[in-house]
Amino acid sequence: MSFGLPYGVFSRPGEPRRVGVRVDDRVLDLAAALGDEVFAAPSLNPFMALGRTAWRAARRRVEAAVRESTAGDLIPLGEVTPHLPVDVADYVDFYASLDHASALGRILRPGEEPLKPNWRHLPVGYHGRAGTVVVSGTPIRRPCGQRPPSAPGGRPSFGPSLRLDIEAELGFVVGTPTGPGERPGAFEDHVFGVALVNDWSARDIQAWEYVPLGPFLGKSFATSISPWITPLDALEGARVDGPAQDPEPLPYLRRSAPWGLDLTLTVELNGEPVSAPPYRGMYWTPDQMLAHMTVNGARLRTGDLFASGTVSGPDDPGSLIELTRNGAEPLTLANGETRTFLDDGDTVTVHAVTRDGIRLAGVSGTIVPAT
Amino acid sequence: MSFGLPYGVFSRPGEPRRVGVRVDDRVLDLAAALGDEVFAAPSLNPFMALGRTAWRAARRRVEAAVRESTAGDLIPLGEVTPHLPVDVADYVDFYASLDHASALGRILRPGEEPLKPNWRHLPVGYHGRAGTVVVSGTPIRRPCGQRPPSAPGGRPSFGPSLRLDIEAELGFVVGTPTGPGERPGAFEDHVFGVALVNDWSARDIQAWEYVPLGPFLGKSFATSISPWITPLDALEGARVDGPAQDPEPLPYLRRSAPWGLDLTLTVELNGEPVSAPPYRGMYWTPDQMLAHMTVNGARLRTGDLFASGTVSGPDDPGSLIELTRNGAEPLTLANGETRTFLDDGDTVTVHAVTRDGIRLAGVSGTIVPAT
Repeated sequence: MSFGLPYGVFSRPGEPRRVGVRVDDRVLDLAAALGDEVFAAPSLNPFMALGRTAWRAARRRVEAAVRESTAGDLIPLGEVTPHLPVDVADYVDFYASLDHASALGRILRPGEEPLKPNWRHLPVGYHGRAGTVVVSGTPIRRPCGQRPPSAPGGRPSFGPSLRLDIEAELGFVVGTPTGPGERPGAFEDHVFGVALVNDWSARDIQAWEYVPLGPFLGKSFATSISPWITPLDALEGARVDGPAQDPEPLPYLRRSAPWGLDLTLTVELNGEPVSAPPYRGMYWTPDQMLAHMTVNGARLRTGDLFASGTVSGPDDPGSLIELTRNGAEPLTLANGETRTFLDDGDTVTVHAVTRDGIRLAGVSGTIVPAT
Repeated sequence: MSFGLPYGVFSRPGEPRRVGVRVDDRVLDLAAALGDEVFAAPSLNPFMALGRTAWRAARRRVEAAVRESTAGDLIPLGEVTPHLPVDVADYVDFYASLDHASALGRILRPGEEPLKPNWRHLPVGYHGRAGTVVVSGTPIRRPCGQRPPSAPGGRPSFGPSLRLDIEAELGFVVGTPTGPGERPGAFEDHVFGVALVNDWSARDIQAWEYVPLGPFLGKSFATSISPWITPLDALEGARVDGPAQDPEPLPYLRRSAPWGLDLTLTVELNGEPVSAPPYRGMYWTPDQMLAHMTVNGARLRTGDLFASGTVSGPDDPGSLIELTRNGAEPLTLANGETRTFLDDGDTVTVHAVTRDGIRLAGVSGTIVPAT
């Protein structure tokens, strides 16, 4: 297994941020190795804005530079500080797993049909807060907010979230923008690569606030992404057809190429694997998400991030609310502790690997107490 | 009546964008008049990032420069191109009018209680698409998308929105950022000024997509803002207490200073006034919106824009869906034409004036046909 030469932004003490490529547990400084000004930048955006032809040409040069590198050219990961790799423009979060959407519908709207009538016709999504997307390793402060009344008609309470959860997701980073009203071309011409995402979720705040305009403060305190963005080309061997869709989607949502991805996430709580959500069963594929997000004429910007929503299989959900059946069935960890939602001090890490052994760099965060 | 010396970004043919101040129907070039580098920028963000002490000092110098200016120093508005004044970071839209939220609840969820249980406890809001905020005057392309099935259980149709609407709003622009987890100080220390906003809304797309994660493509095709941002200091004479609130909000939402604003919007359809929504009755005041948006630790960035949601009084709504009772009672215009929602070619302009005669620069847009 190896990493697929993912790109990221790093710094060494006293030096400015710059773009590098990860080679297993080392980093190749691309500004130094290739001499391109575009890699002497504090984010991947200038490189991503160049478009696919430039990405592919760069990848060939990167591969050659890695082959020709000696141990002295590669910086141990432990000697660099990783930074947010992308200057995030707009952040959109989808809801593309049938198992996750069904499970959450049953939990949040008991007694109702779990899926809303639109769910099988379009990839449901919403805009999140771009300004609170943070790089893996950033401590996650437990958010305060309004928690639901204990009985209908009652008053909400205020305080730290008591139901702090994770959402293990795959994120897609847009490189090539579109002009106002211009429809995007092929998926691979616009999407630069993928990140692992943890869309931290305060379930109590979310449950109270989300009608009718959707999640807001229950999500907007933090979204963590991996420091390394794996270019799409490294995922060629993972591409599969998405699952069959019934009813057939409208023409603008029909798939023209296989952009399902056969990879498996691993969710670790304090170092212990607690779930292994499979990505390949995700009902809506990322090319469909991109087509939907822009069908109304909305333009893409370099740095747009759209994420899949929680990746959940029938038995391997990507959130604690599903794993513990809304807290009714606590997890028992190897050390005997139990968890329904996250405790202060807990560390969650999400990794992934494709069917052909390409690893995606993980995303990790540790909960610190509310202030 | 006069404008309150609002700031904007303009250019003249062949020249770069720069910051100016509007003096009635003329523009004073601030980079030239004051010599500050911060005004030779393509957006207000560098100036806004300086904070309130700098804003107030600049305002005194601007007032002096305007007093001392001669006709030759001022450029006629017709000779400049206005640009998007703010590099928008995150865009949040609230839902702060009791009359609007009640009316929309009755229309979208007939037979149910119009207000959700949370509405009087918190300012409901959601994130919109920052990348499609456009300056007044930008043509608005009618969006395509999924329109609701004609009967429950049916299939959606696809095509141009048939129910294209407006939302007349007041927008608040953040100047002074906060660090991660840092709580903002006083409202006036962070908010630089106000803009008029038209949050164009495709009601058919919105009605089908918005459960359970909120509005997405029904809004994300375009949001227009005025080219001129009126600094808060120009609105001192318009400040009033917000309306009484029952139940009393939680402590973090309690008002510590009057940030209701006594101003009246005018909505013009093809030059004809069709509604005059009063802002002073808005249930949630903008200081409460700011406090809510950040109570979970979410940081502010320079350029964050948060808008009030549709400004509607009981008899003067800020949207066509309310004015025409969801299309059941068409408007008859002076030329004999009728409208339920917007036709291609229609121009909507929103103006405003405070009780003490300060005018806010208008926001305007014309509908062009779907592609």
